[in-house]
Amino acid sequence: MELLTRTLAAISPVDETLLAQAQAKLDNKTKPLGSLGTLEEVARRFAAITGNLSPQVGKKVIFTFAGDHGIVEEGVSAFPKEVTPQMVLNFLRGGAGVNVLARHSGAEVRVVDVGVDYDFDPAPGLIIKKIAKGTRNFAKGSAMTREEAVAALEVGIELAAKAKAEGVTMVGTGEMGIGNTSPSSAIIAALSRCSVREVTHRGTGINDSALEHKIKVIEAGLELNRPDPNDPLDVLTKVGGLEIAGIAGLVLGAAANRLPVVVDGFISTAGALIACEMHPCVREYLFAAHTSVEIGHQMMLERIGATPLLDLKFRLGEGTGAALAMGLIDAGLKILNEMATFAEAGVSEG
Amino acid sequence: MELLTRTLAAISPVDETLLAQAQAKLDNKTKPLGSLGTLEEVARRFAAITGNLSPQVGKKVIFTFAGDHGIVEEGVSAFPKEVTPQMVLNFLRGGAGVNVLARHSGAEVRVVDVGVDYDFDPAPGLIIKKIAKGTRNFAKGSAMTREEAVAALEVGIELAAKAKAEGVTMVGTGEMGIGNTSPSSAIIAALSRCSVREVTHRGTGINDSALEHKIKVIEAGLELNRPDPNDPLDVLTKVGGLEIAGIAGLVLGAAANRLPVVVDGFISTAGALIACEMHPCVREYLFAAHTSVEIGHQMMLERIGATPLLDLKFRLGEGTGAALAMGLIDAGLKILNEMATFAEAGVSEG
Repeated sequence: MELLTRTLAAISPVDETLLAQAQAKLDNKTKPLGSLGTLEEVARRFAAITGNLSPQVGKKVIFTFAGDHGIVEEGVSAFPKEVTPQMVLNFLRGGAGVNVLARHSGAEVRVVDVGVDYDFDPAPGLIIKKIAKGTRNFAKGSAMTREEAVAALEVGIELAAKAKAEGVTMVGTGEMGIGNTSPSSAIIAALSRCSVREVTHRGTGINDSALEHKIKVIEAGLELNRPDPNDPLDVLTKVGGLEIAGIAGLVLGAAANRLPVVVDGFISTAGALIACEMHPCVREYLFAAHTSVEIGHQMMLERIGATPLLDLKFRLGEGTGAALAMGLIDAGLKILNEMATFAEAGVSEG
Repeated sequence: MELLTRTLAAISPVDETLLAQAQAKLDNKTKPLGSLGTLEEVARRFAAITGNLSPQVGKKVIFTFAGDHGIVEEGVSAFPKEVTPQMVLNFLRGGAGVNVLARHSGAEVRVVDVGVDYDFDPAPGLIIKKIAKGTRNFAKGSAMTREEAVAALEVGIELAAKAKAEGVTMVGTGEMGIGNTSPSSAIIAALSRCSVREVTHRGTGINDSALEHKIKVIEAGLELNRPDPNDPLDVLTKVGGLEIAGIAGLVLGAAANRLPVVVDGFISTAGALIACEMHPCVREYLFAAHTSVEIGHQMMLERIGATPLLDLKFRLGEGTGAALAMGLIDAGLKILNEMATFAEAGVSEG
């Protein structure tokens, strides 16, 4: 808890003077003012977050947090629970979607076992920080204890601090955990005035009757646990997940360390939302990667106040959207650094 | 005209069997069915266009066509006409937006002078194929002769054929021509039932009164020239541009040569639209790169039946959106080629 408290105390707003200076630099480039739209917004904010008006493309790491979910007992997912460790092993061999897309963008994938119900052997690229062998079934009681939730948050905080110390210039979030759209829907329903039905979708691909069942299971879990919407840690504890807590911690740690963090889709945004509810300045440090097919994602993004960079109809998670978005952010940094000015190029201004 | 006729005769539909085979390959990868959304659609179509179910990332070229516009006399642009050759020189030095973003995606930029009112010295990266020193003012008569329009189209067709012969695996379109949003708006208004007002926007950044003036100039040009909406070549000739004709030709040549072509924003899509109106199968070979801020772009895309890959609020042109979209398409090819299958990874299916 002490690390969490210190981290929250270290988060402050991004410097508005730097934002204006970065925009002034962009405005001298050979293009109509503002004509590179979102890429300019990204470059400006990256510069301000890092305090560097010429931020270079550097080392990028995606942390893919893995954890299991007791709620899977209720039959809410199209895939069996053993797929969580199977996919972790797929990540470690480099064969999953996030590996392919991270290589494409020049990012490294690190898998964090924060709560998988399986004992992994040590392996390159695997960080074993298991808090528990999965959450408990939130249809029958609290998913975690408050101590477990804080411990998982602190795993993420520590990883962000270590990444910064190591010279990583941008981090991304990802996750793997069969069943984890259910806690994500529960989190946004608990924090907002949305009904469970408005924020619950098909996850990896359940049919209509399974979706109806999933909605009822989540409604019952919220009814039983009654998480306090004014206490994001209570929401995380009662209906969240260990990997969601790890992501929330990574986002908090990134903000405290002035490290840009790229947030993947629905489940990652559930984690980012918990972080944003804990401190109002967190949102200034994050980039929303993409718009998920999951219907509750839009409600989360609106609550955070973030607009995603991509909309490619993804619903895979792992950090796949974050990997592609990191490539776009790098492109924005290159615009800031490599484009000629009107004066350099001898081009008349409008 | 003979090359154009032969090219149109060589265009045929993309093979649906290949589309199904590519999707079957994607469906064996370790992810829920369809969960990489647009990236799967892109990979599937690229495979079918090229007739190769394992299309590798290869050589990519963006052709940035440059031309001047007589309509600039009417005061429709925020920038003076001399910016067209100034920006061509900026492209050749590698300092423009398209250069930065093409380098980011691993694409080469080739600038095609199809109609700039300036005599360039030969230079690496510059292809001099000048048909005329700009179009004539379409507020006072036809922008081009039909022969000029065909000649500019055939420049693009030849470039596509040469690229294919050279081993280029994907081409992109781009343009530079001060004043060229006016002919682009005129083209979509002439071909559709949209009013000029519905499809005309601020280009590089004109104010409200200049926009009103631009709308009136385009309306008067259409009234005077009365292009035949059933004859896309007539529309191109009377209210188009030489660089727009070059782009239309590149798109036709790409379709005839089974070469995937990535179409940039508003002006490029005007060229692609002319090509699509000339042959109904052309649309199957093109990828729309991004959604432009120009309001007429959406009408063009709807008429073509294309959904853009990106929406980054760009309004720069040059091929900037195409450059970034090429990176996403490459990512799709890597998914098709590099991701593990369920069997390879030992992951249970849903």
